[in-house]
Amino acid sequence: MNEQESSTTPNLLPEPTLRRLPWYLAYVAMLKHEGVEKVSSRRLAEDLAVDASQIAKDLSFLKIKGKTRIGYDLAELEETLKQFLGFASTHNAVMVGAGSLGAALMCDSGLNHYGLNIVAGIDTNPQLADTCIKGIPVFPPSELSQLVKRLDIQIGIIAVPVEQAQDVADSLVGAGIKALWNFTPRRIRVKPGIVVSNTSIYSHLAVMYNRLANIETPRVQ
Amino acid sequence: MNEQESSTTPNLLPEPTLRRLPWYLAYVAMLKHEGVEKVSSRRLAEDLAVDASQIAKDLSFLKIKGKTRIGYDLAELEETLKQFLGFASTHNAVMVGAGSLGAALMCDSGLNHYGLNIVAGIDTNPQLADTCIKGIPVFPPSELSQLVKRLDIQIGIIAVPVEQAQDVADSLVGAGIKALWNFTPRRIRVKPGIVVSNTSIYSHLAVMYNRLANIETPRVQ
Repeated sequence: MNEQESSTTPNLLPEPTLRRLPWYLAYVAMLKHEGVEKVSSRRLAEDLAVDASQIAKDLSFLKIKGKTRIGYDLAELEETLKQFLGFASTHNAVMVGAGSLGAALMCDSGLNHYGLNIVAGIDTNPQLADTCIKGIPVFPPSELSQLVKRLDIQIGIIAVPVEQAQDVADSLVGAGIKALWNFTPRRIRVKPGIVVSNTSIYSHLAVMYNRLANIETPRVQ
Repeated sequence: MNEQESSTTPNLLPEPTLRRLPWYLAYVAMLKHEGVEKVSSRRLAEDLAVDASQIAKDLSFLKIKGKTRIGYDLAELEETLKQFLGFASTHNAVMVGAGSLGAALMCDSGLNHYGLNIVAGIDTNPQLADTCIKGIPVFPPSELSQLVKRLDIQIGIIAVPVEQAQDVADSLVGAGIKALWNFTPRRIRVKPGIVVSNTSIYSHLAVMYNRLANIETPRVQ
């Protein structure tokens, strides 16, 4: 995340809270699906393995309060969480790099359920440009600027080879994009006022391998 | 991550370090690709926007030291990082849930470059079971246990609908899996000694939407 933002904007939630809210939403949606109507803060805390006081604090940012002895109303909780998290609105995005990971993400309809609307792909490969992936048209990089304007795109997703990540970030920002979702392991740099979210899938792998190796040979070396 | 592990195992690196190392690797690989042979710690620090002392500390876990006035040898640095991060070895994995996101990840050849070898998929949908996705065979859930043994699978990737996540985690652990990579927004619970890595793509979206909304209307409400 772009840390410059946190000091100047009042609605900015702490990132740990923002990361927990989708867990709550997933859990609440599941209970509701099972026909449950209310949930106590104690059950929430137990099932999610998060402190009850932490949950209460997180939900207070959304102005949601549980009722004594009744708990939270699930329908209300789900709706408020969805609205608050932005999953109920549509955010137009462009996928830069429609190769392996990029194409995979374009095929993931799950992103759509969470309000991300990938309206176009960009790829330097002339064999990909002018094709469609899951109905989403792919364009050459020269089209970027006018696509961003024409399709009202706010989010640029970066799924290019690592050595191109910074250049792509620069051209996305140049085209007027306000938020970058970076899937490369490269740390990109942007001017203040641009949101950067890093999802480094491969970093998670490294953490997992390390933990796994230490389970297997817990006291060697 | 399973926090029980951190207190008992000596090789366990701090997670922030483990997450930075793949950035260093990506950057080093890029410089090497450009024909560069040495890099000073100052340039590393500047280009990665990480404190030079932090980089030195992170790399000291790998017993890598830069040479005064010369810096780090890139070939050595790349090789050591790759080995250390486990990207140079093969880790067999099963993908549970070969639907939208699961199939997408099975198609991402990038994972393979980072040592993750998805050898099988599992899906309850009889139309998916007994097919192949990018050459990887998909089986019904009843085959899980014997697949894990036969194919020496250590890692289970969870990409099922959220309400099935805990059940899938339980059956993976029951089948002998040691590490779970959870792509659902559900917080799964496991017995001590099992590694859990959460990659909640949708949580990252929530953080991004929130930051974006605050850029756009910085002082409203």
